[in-house]
Amino acid sequence: MKVLIIGGAGMIGRKLAERLATDGALDGKAISSLTLYDVVEGAVPPGAKMQVKLLTGDLPADGEARRMIADRPDVIFHLAAIVSGEAEQDFDKGYRINLDGTRNLLEAVRHAGHKPRFVFASSIAVFGAPFPNEIGDEFFNTPLTSYGTQKNICELLVSDYSRKGFVDGISIRLPTICVRPGKPNKAASGFFSNIMREPLAGQEAVLPVSETVTHWHASPRAAVGFMVHAATMDLDKVGPRRALTMPGRAVTVGEQIAALKRVAGDKVVARIRREPDPFIEKIVAGWPSRFAADRALALGFKPDASFEEIIRIHIEDELGGRVA
Amino acid sequence: MKVLIIGGAGMIGRKLAERLATDGALDGKAISSLTLYDVVEGAVPPGAKMQVKLLTGDLPADGEARRMIADRPDVIFHLAAIVSGEAEQDFDKGYRINLDGTRNLLEAVRHAGHKPRFVFASSIAVFGAPFPNEIGDEFFNTPLTSYGTQKNICELLVSDYSRKGFVDGISIRLPTICVRPGKPNKAASGFFSNIMREPLAGQEAVLPVSETVTHWHASPRAAVGFMVHAATMDLDKVGPRRALTMPGRAVTVGEQIAALKRVAGDKVVARIRREPDPFIEKIVAGWPSRFAADRALALGFKPDASFEEIIRIHIEDELGGRVA
Repeated sequence: MKVLIIGGAGMIGRKLAERLATDGALDGKAISSLTLYDVVEGAVPPGAKMQVKLLTGDLPADGEARRMIADRPDVIFHLAAIVSGEAEQDFDKGYRINLDGTRNLLEAVRHAGHKPRFVFASSIAVFGAPFPNEIGDEFFNTPLTSYGTQKNICELLVSDYSRKGFVDGISIRLPTICVRPGKPNKAASGFFSNIMREPLAGQEAVLPVSETVTHWHASPRAAVGFMVHAATMDLDKVGPRRALTMPGRAVTVGEQIAALKRVAGDKVVARIRREPDPFIEKIVAGWPSRFAADRALALGFKPDASFEEIIRIHIEDELGGRVA
Repeated sequence: MKVLIIGGAGMIGRKLAERLATDGALDGKAISSLTLYDVVEGAVPPGAKMQVKLLTGDLPADGEARRMIADRPDVIFHLAAIVSGEAEQDFDKGYRINLDGTRNLLEAVRHAGHKPRFVFASSIAVFGAPFPNEIGDEFFNTPLTSYGTQKNICELLVSDYSRKGFVDGISIRLPTICVRPGKPNKAASGFFSNIMREPLAGQEAVLPVSETVTHWHASPRAAVGFMVHAATMDLDKVGPRRALTMPGRAVTVGEQIAALKRVAGDKVVARIRREPDPFIEKIVAGWPSRFAADRALALGFKPDASFEEIIRIHIEDELGGRVA
């Protein structure tokens, strides 16, 4: 079994590679080769027993998709994308990487003719306000960003190429990943992770919105679990509707903080500083916050057990079990 | 006011050109120039007082979109497409014409920078079974054909290019056009028109499905009305959700036949021959049949008054008022 991860140097790509290296197999079949493709060089996962190839390149460039799938991978995870803010600022770059890159890839796979499993990382950015209180599986897609538009278009392509039998594809819409490891970033959604990660590491963090804001979260570990399940599940059961909203945990910021207090105590929670930012409040108000991901649940995708569990996963996976 | 109709030699394109030539104006502004673009040469509409240019070419070819909009049209109607059956048989051609052609056009308009009104003819093929009894405006798009996929992708592009201010665009999903003038064709949907048009012209027609089959119809005249309204309405009222299902008339085949009897009598209805075709029955069963087009109605799009009205429009517009 040969596996290709496009976007293999990113946060989820790296964690997925580590999981596959640890498991050594996918769907009960030993992984003989793991290729990590990205714009920057990825890392060989610790303890990997299979052959690991690190490729770098410009995804939508001519011939690049063919090069990437030269060894006819059985499973392709496509996680590479220009993020929302950049796709909004650089219209051409967003369409080139997020749409043309994916389409070239699907075309290369179609012409290779071996019909691999194709797992596409989509996003809840395919939805646009106004929303019902809870977004069901049959609610329509009206993206309000170029990024969301590009993800939506790729979902449609994955479905059509699957229907035609060119790939065996599925698109999974990831919740916001929390607790996101690394440095605080300037993404408008950054604070959802910052107010957990920084206090747990002994640092202060700023909360720019009210505690009543609700959002839809999944841990990095759960996201990797979604990927692995999407790569191994029986897609005949999914039928032609190949885009699925993944099950997250809908919690208010207040519930996030209460969970942090239960897991790590008052001292940690006291490191959150409230500094309302009307600009961020307004952006966040336009985001979807709560989904009924019934189809994904019925198809066996496993959410985090609770927001406390999300925090504990961060402490285990990123902090070696220790809170500052 | 300069107007461009892409697909100007097709059935709706021709009727739209005739309507604009008769009106001489759009939104109260005189039309100084009307360009009809198609793969085959269109016809100067009878009595046209404005300058009419007939262009032919291959829509997605290099430089073609720029050539088409060289005179910076104020309104662009984009009706050109490879039809459903052909897009399904020739995957590359469908994507090239229906997706790349539209995208090139939007890109050319973006770079021209004059932000014209852009009316895109979409289709209810963006929906895929299974359906609720009545499809609401917020029901999701899960096309089951490459044609439907391409139309859906173009809807998303029109919305994103509009949101970014590159065009002032809207996508309108047309019902099945009935009574379609011309010869009987082999499209699976052909019989809906055939069983009206042929008997009215003194010919026999075959009904391959049961009389309980329900479908969603609009007359060619109503479809042209949708186009004109889409070109002139205030799009600020539409907001960012720029794809609208047009209001049709949902009737069973039995109701079609009853309406034909009321309008044209027993002699005409007797020309319908029942010859059940399980293959066509099965295709038709997968089609959407009934919509609640509430948004379009609220925005002022006008459906045909009844199915009888649809038949009378055919008799007036195509048969000079005479039934055989």
